[in-house]
Amino acid sequence: MVLKAIFFDIDDTLFDSTQLTIMARRNSIRAMIDAGLPVDEEKALMMLQKIIKRLGPNYPKHYDELLKELGIGWNPKIIAAGVVAYEHTKMGFLKPLPKVIPTLLKLKKRGYRLGVISNGLAVKQWEKLVSLGLHHLFNVVVTSEEVGYEKPDRRIFQIAVEKLNLKPEECVMVGDRIDVDIKGAKSLGMKTIRIKRGKHKAETPKNDKEKPDYEIKKFEELLEILP
Amino acid sequence: MVLKAIFFDIDDTLFDSTQLTIMARRNSIRAMIDAGLPVDEEKALMMLQKIIKRLGPNYPKHYDELLKELGIGWNPKIIAAGVVAYEHTKMGFLKPLPKVIPTLLKLKKRGYRLGVISNGLAVKQWEKLVSLGLHHLFNVVVTSEEVGYEKPDRRIFQIAVEKLNLKPEECVMVGDRIDVDIKGAKSLGMKTIRIKRGKHKAETPKNDKEKPDYEIKKFEELLEILP
Repeated sequence: MVLKAIFFDIDDTLFDSTQLTIMARRNSIRAMIDAGLPVDEEKALMMLQKIIKRLGPNYPKHYDELLKELGIGWNPKIIAAGVVAYEHTKMGFLKPLPKVIPTLLKLKKRGYRLGVISNGLAVKQWEKLVSLGLHHLFNVVVTSEEVGYEKPDRRIFQIAVEKLNLKPEECVMVGDRIDVDIKGAKSLGMKTIRIKRGKHKAETPKNDKEKPDYEIKKFEELLEILP
Repeated sequence: MVLKAIFFDIDDTLFDSTQLTIMARRNSIRAMIDAGLPVDEEKALMMLQKIIKRLGPNYPKHYDELLKELGIGWNPKIIAAGVVAYEHTKMGFLKPLPKVIPTLLKLKKRGYRLGVISNGLAVKQWEKLVSLGLHHLFNVVVTSEEVGYEKPDRRIFQIAVEKLNLKPEECVMVGDRIDVDIKGAKSLGMKTIRIKRGKHKAETPKNDKEKPDYEIKKFEELLEILP
């Protein structure tokens, strides 16, 4: 079966989400300390990580919660300092991983259709693609918010494949997460390529259902696998 | 009576809010058109202005509403393109008006205490001060969200004055809006300086209650009025 379409995860596949998030959180803590937050940087960073883990990344008031847990009253100056530093970092350093754009362009030239399958809020995920300058490159972008299913649920992959009028075997999924991207796509019968990057890079497949067809370390290795 | 403190409005007093907002909105429309919005730039801009006027500047989904009014379905790609362009513009061009920082520093050196009295959400207004690099310069910042009263209500001015343990006559309010800044501060007995800038610059006082003690065109003229 000839492969006709390539689907990508966004975070830690198209850009270095792990590194950027660490940097943005640290800068936000530093800015809050500079604005008067009386706390040790490392301690505050650890507390913030836990809060984000507990309340989820899309909760809009992580810093309010941090001040609360630190026993400090609501302080809009400190919160604003954190927000601005976080957004400046994200905006200033949000770049595609090396070779992502030339590789995608070459794959398009080879005739592949390109898509994104991503868990998260549609506008937020599109904001990443726009900031990365990638929003014109994909034929289809499917987010869990829009379809109502999250990776690894096979239905989100199925919807993406159907949008291109293809069969699962004609499509390949490229992602960093074994449990989410690889397992999900494989369960539908798609081909899978795991990119070993970011915070999940040390994980190993638990069984055959989690085993990708290929593993790569650099994005441009796709050009060797996909003729 | 010797003046001891100077309070400032933020928008169109410390930075050119009118100009920046026009630029950010236009850039957001252009980005949405680039992302596929099939509409004339001027027409869409006018529709957006009306939507913001109707739903208020803090409503979080202006672009969703724009698509709805244009009869286009919800489109996260187009919305994201608008959001990113708007935020990039705001972030890249948010700068204090010429001479604001050196003038504030000189006023501080002359012994004045400095404050902000602003209508709006506390964190949002602080985000502006942080982005402008002004958040370390003020002894007190009072927002309508925090105190529950909006300019021109005299109580927001009163709370600000009390925070510095001063009397109204010892304080001066500097702002661009006759109906909001000048009228409100005057009603409490504060001195008032109107800065003729931005979209309200052509307005004239309706009566003595709206007449400022001084009018200036450039921020640094404060140094002539306040010895």
